[in-house]
Formats: sequence, C-alpha cells, structure tokens
Amino acid sequence: MPKKIVAVVSGGMDSVTMLHDLVKKGNIITVLSFDYEQRHKKELLMMKWNCKKLGIEYKIIKLGKIMSNSCLTDPDKPVPHGHYESKSMKLTVVPNRNMVMLSVAISYAISCDFEAVAYAAHSGDHAIYPDCRPEFVQKIKALAKVVHYFPVDILTPYLALNKGTIIARGLKIGVDYSKTWTCYEGKEKICGKCGSCQERLEGFKQNGIKDPLQ
Amino acid sequence: MPKKIVAVVSGGMDSVTMLHDLVKKGNIITVLSFDYEQRHKKELLMMKWNCKKLGIEYKIIKLGKIMSNSCLTDPDKPVPHGHYESKSMKLTVVPNRNMVMLSVAISYAISCDFEAVAYAAHSGDHAIYPDCRPEFVQKIKALAKVVHYFPVDILTPYLALNKGTIIARGLKIGVDYSKTWTCYEGKEKICGKCGSCQERLEGFKQNGIKDPLQ
Repeated sequence: MPKKIVAVVSGGMDSVTMLHDLVKKGNIITVLSFDYEQRHKKELLMMKWNCKKLGIEYKIIKLGKIMSNSCLTDPDKPVPHGHYESKSMKLTVVPNRNMVMLSVAISYAISCDFEAVAYAAHSGDHAIYPDCRPEFVQKIKALAKVVHYFPVDILTPYLALNKGTIIARGLKIGVDYSKTWTCYEGKEKICGKCGSCQERLEGFKQNGIKDPLQ
Repeated sequence: MPKKIVAVVSGGMDSVTMLHDLVKKGNIITVLSFDYEQRHKKELLMMKWNCKKLGIEYKIIKLGKIMSNSCLTDPDKPVPHGHYESKSMKLTVVPNRNMVMLSVAISYAISCDFEAVAYAAHSGDHAIYPDCRPEFVQKIKALAKVVHYFPVDILTPYLALNKGTIIARGLKIGVDYSKTWTCYEGKEKICGKCGSCQERLEGFKQNGIKDPLQ
C-alpha cells in the first residue's frame, strides 16, 4: 500500500536513487533536505534537479551551523583523502547529523499527518558513521514510535545494500547519475580522492561502467 | 562525581530550578536554549538573567520556524485557556520539540566532549506532552548511547517530580522565581489562564506562597 513519506535526502546517489525508488512505488512523498553549511552544498542543486524531473515539491530547511566539529562544516579543516573505511574518515563525521535531520523530519511528518520518514543509510556507511548503523536505526525506530500521539515509522530501504547494488538498482529505474553529487569537496569537479568519491567510483566499477561525473 | 553536562533549558521554572541544581552540585555546565519562533520568547531573557547570576555562558541556538502546527509557534492559533491536563492543551504541543532540541544538544555535547545532556521534563507534563513521558525518555536514552563512538547520557532529574515539589526544591537552593517565565502568551504580564500558568499557580499554592509574577 502506498505510504505518505517524508524523504530526508542529500543530493548523493543513495538519496537520489531512494527517492526515485519510493516515487516509482507510488508513495506520496515530501522531500526534505538540510542546509547545515556543508562544504558540498552543491548536492542540493542536484536534488532540486531530480525533484523537478519527478514533479515533486522540494523543501530545503536551513539549519545554519548548528552542528560543527567536522571537516564537512568547517572550511578550515581539510577533507581527508583515502579509503572510505580508513580511520582518517572519522574527520568527516558531522556529530549526530542523522538524529538532528530525522528529528526535524519527524516533526514535519507529524504536522502533515504523514506516517513515515525515510533516509538512505547503506551498508558502506556502517564502518565509519555511527548514525547509519543498524543499531542506531533500531533505536531511532523505537523512539519514533513514542514521540507523539501516533507512531511515526522510520524507513531505511538501503540499510543492507552497498553502493554497487544501489547503483545497479538506480540504473534499472532510470536514475541519471550525472545529476547526483557525492564528493565532500564542493568544487566544480569531483576530487576523486576523498573517501566518498572513492566509494562511488568503486560502485561504478562493480557495475562495469564509468561514473558520468568523471 | 561532577559531570560535564549540556543543559537544555527554556526560561521556565523547571529549567531554571534544574540549572541552579546542577550548578550547585558542582557539575560543569553549558547552557543551550532554542529560539524556534516561540510566542513566549520572553522566557529566554529570564534564562539569560539566571545564567549571568550563576556566572555561566548562555548560548541560544536559532532554529527558525522548523517546527510548526502549534499555537506556540503560530501567531494565528490562539493559546487555549483551561487546565493543563485538558484536551484543548494538545494545541500547545510543538511536534517532536524535545527530540529536535535534544538531538542538537547531543551534537553539541559530542563536539565538546561532554558526557551528558539534561532537560527538565517533569511529571505534570506526562499527561499531555508525549516527549516528556518516561517512555520517551527511556527510548531517547537508549538512542543517545549509540549515536556516536562514545555514549551520551540523557539526564532527567525531575521526571518524577511535580511543579509543587520542584518549587519547594528551588526555594531551598535560592531560586528567584520572579526571574522565570511560564506563561504561553508572551505578553508583558502573565495571563493566569493558560494551562501552563494554572499549573504554576497551583505549584505555588501547594507551597503556601504567592507567585512573585502575580
């Protein structure tokens, strides 16, 4: 049965694929992104393009710099290069980012009488991002059931998938990956060196194709 | 042992009492309030006064109007009069407010290497505010343990106390209740009719004294 879902998205490939996927399944979607002064704010333009293509409303919530102490929000801290699972990637963690964004999305869902909130945590994130791990998801699901007079569901359709599998799924449903942004550096072209870029490039390699952003 | 605690406070009597209490016990405190375009923003001035008195830093985080659908954030919706536990008080619920504020406070705690976040939910809130109930507290405690590489503790020292008992405690430790703000209407004087005022007045009555704001 179609659901009324608030989709919490960036403009990365996982978010964009999930959004197309949810729309394809006939759900009623409201799309929320967050501007938290991230270095790679460019991702929001990509999401805007996708929402326009899908004909759905796109809402960007400006949080200002309420989360800090990460190279993604502090221009003075350089983005580490190297593999996604290496220790240096801890510098890219924005403390408690997903709980902050999901809590605002839950508030929004309650106001609109929507029944669920979805986000695209995936298995590649588990090693480094505490707020993408199954344990976090399980606990926030339990919390979202009791935050209001009615329960709100938290959906994580990609929790067990990796980047390669997500790309495979996206290609099947017609996602245009030139309209997604993954690189932590918010520059004109992708750096190809940050952990996020490396994981993305590996994902395309797994599918035997070249990243259209390369 | 003293703890390093982020205190999430309004400028109400529960928050102010809790803050004095935590400071009195020798904890190291950072005080966070939130400006979410609430009607009764006046409460923040009261908290500012208290922090100055206690000699501790006070930080107000501007969220803008990211939570709505409540008479406390929407000037067009009148504040209901009547008893705190009556059904009409549901209009004063700001959807998911505590999860939003606590999640930002947890982010802040992680950035500062603080071990705990405290807020002053009390038993009078349980009837009407889902995000002040023991069930909510239990679930958000469990979540806060897994949001980062180290656990963050959620402290709710007043969860089992009512307004009367909190006032009794505050009077003992020298809280000046003329420097607290409870009324949902953010006017010059208290309305005395909203549920929040009524509960406050009952609390003073229980202690056999008059509310200094009356």
